[in-house]
Amino acid sequence: MTEVRRFSGTDIADFCHRTLMAAEMPSADARIVADLMADADVNGSDGHGVFRLPGYIRRIKEGGLNLTPNIRVEKEKSGMALVDGDNAQGHLVMRYCAELATKKAKDSGVAWVGSHASNHAGPAALYAKIPMAADMIGLYVAIGNANHLPPWGGTEMLLSTNPIAIAVPGMEEPAIVLDMATTVAAYGKVKTAAQRGEEMPEGWMIDRQGQPLTDPTKSEDGFLLPIGGPKGYGLALMFGLLAGTLNGAAFGKDVVDFNADFQTPTNTGQFIVAIDIAAFADVETFKRNIDNIYRTMKASPTLPGYDEVLLPGEQSHKKRQDREANGVPIHDGLLEALAKTAGDLGVEALG
Amino acid sequence: MTEVRRFSGTDIADFCHRTLMAAEMPSADARIVADLMADADVNGSDGHGVFRLPGYIRRIKEGGLNLTPNIRVEKEKSGMALVDGDNAQGHLVMRYCAELATKKAKDSGVAWVGSHASNHAGPAALYAKIPMAADMIGLYVAIGNANHLPPWGGTEMLLSTNPIAIAVPGMEEPAIVLDMATTVAAYGKVKTAAQRGEEMPEGWMIDRQGQPLTDPTKSEDGFLLPIGGPKGYGLALMFGLLAGTLNGAAFGKDVVDFNADFQTPTNTGQFIVAIDIAAFADVETFKRNIDNIYRTMKASPTLPGYDEVLLPGEQSHKKRQDREANGVPIHDGLLEALAKTAGDLGVEALG
Repeated sequence: MTEVRRFSGTDIADFCHRTLMAAEMPSADARIVADLMADADVNGSDGHGVFRLPGYIRRIKEGGLNLTPNIRVEKEKSGMALVDGDNAQGHLVMRYCAELATKKAKDSGVAWVGSHASNHAGPAALYAKIPMAADMIGLYVAIGNANHLPPWGGTEMLLSTNPIAIAVPGMEEPAIVLDMATTVAAYGKVKTAAQRGEEMPEGWMIDRQGQPLTDPTKSEDGFLLPIGGPKGYGLALMFGLLAGTLNGAAFGKDVVDFNADFQTPTNTGQFIVAIDIAAFADVETFKRNIDNIYRTMKASPTLPGYDEVLLPGEQSHKKRQDREANGVPIHDGLLEALAKTAGDLGVEALG
Repeated sequence: MTEVRRFSGTDIADFCHRTLMAAEMPSADARIVADLMADADVNGSDGHGVFRLPGYIRRIKEGGLNLTPNIRVEKEKSGMALVDGDNAQGHLVMRYCAELATKKAKDSGVAWVGSHASNHAGPAALYAKIPMAADMIGLYVAIGNANHLPPWGGTEMLLSTNPIAIAVPGMEEPAIVLDMATTVAAYGKVKTAAQRGEEMPEGWMIDRQGQPLTDPTKSEDGFLLPIGGPKGYGLALMFGLLAGTLNGAAFGKDVVDFNADFQTPTNTGQFIVAIDIAAFADVETFKRNIDNIYRTMKASPTLPGYDEVLLPGEQSHKKRQDREANGVPIHDGLLEALAKTAGDLGVEALG
């Protein structure tokens, strides 16, 4: 059994900030990245917060990331923009894109902003939620940074988990926030299971003979399964064409495995759509409708074996409440990895 | 075993046209609807073409459809429009919306057009494919016209199969066209299985105790299963908020079961996004990249038990080639239903 200690979001953010700065990321950029990383942890995205710091630092050290990027609009029309991320840390690129989409949608009603030359940006929901502050709906799709999914019926890993997040604000109830990989399990969950010494349930992965694979330390021997079989494959593929190919970003064979190669620019593709509720409807009426839908779903009677119906984002919302009050639980395997990363850079460890 | 006869797309379209006209739909509108219905059949969407004619005619006869609609833009900004379908046949509303989105995207790069007061429009792919003629990508989402899906873990059917279609054009290879319900099976497949006297595989539906339901004639005793369990539920819900609630269309408890109620306006919601490839990339380069991705996927080695990897839309493309050459197969159960509908209106039956 692994040990778990809890740390505040602020402590995690400050640890990420000083570690990124020690790796020579400029302080202001490191602040943005660190705060978004800690936010991921507070939201319950255990595979996408401080867990990723050792990999990010290694990429910086090996020269795979541009620490002085010029993130800029490359093409633009009223309803869209294409952003060159200039190989910056993905959090910086996607915060830029989400804010740009929000600003554009105030005029155009709906704005779609795609990126290339970006990098891993953490959990999808972080960015889908940004337009909500302006009473907008956010929709975000990303190309995953390693291929773990073959086309349906195939054995060549040509696709990633290509996640989607959609965030819709309510008035009094929590926002409804979907954040899902197009595979049954995200690869981050496989990695955290391996680090914690846990088995995977059947249905997450199969081996090259099509048999269930449940040992997460043997994940290299197989691949993830898409949701709904050919349907999840179809979604992963189409999301890849929209977030990758359309934006001039890597897709398919061109995807760089960021867990194995820390030097080649990943040319990650993502896109975000901001939808201004006011362009379609009265904002307060819309938000009250969302509250009503939230309550209607919660009030549904349940199947045998289920205690309650959950809304998308509800578990994350509950985790956030717990973690804001009691801190983010961090397993000792991760703490050790973080201490090593910190020690190598001569910065103070977490805790 | 049922008997099957084959009919040309033109014969099906002409049959739909004369039947809709006999039910007093104006000829020009009936032509548009009939051609789209036959196109659905030729594309292999057996549950969404002429199969739906008896239901459409019954709705017209019982006063549930507006035969002289004023389909119009209600709200508009450069990147979006909200269309009032005025309770017209859905095919008319969605062709209008798809053409409007395409026209707007020529200026804005990306345009999102939502609708309310629409109706069932046939298969999603029909509309996602329309922007391709202008070298655009199409993305279409609809609220299904009957709730067959509870929230995950619940038993109250508050959601429909809310499908998504995305169409991306290639240069020499067929377009890649995803068209999928967020449930394992679309309800149309349950209805066709019932009409053909076929069993359903396990995994399509469960009963109210959570046990597998395989008799399609007992579909009222259970509900459809979402793809990927809670993930498919999440997609169905979010697509419903975007296609329904945002547009002022019916969602959740407000959805009218169009298989049971032929009088109440359905207030169906749909949206389509047109994405102008030229705003992001060189069109020819992009299309050649899509061809390359198509070929790379096809070339993947296969798992034991699989002969080949299929691209989204490939089966439909093959069916289209077969049906254009050999006609659309129609089962005798459907032929009888169509003959009855035709007979009631005094028009010549199919075949």
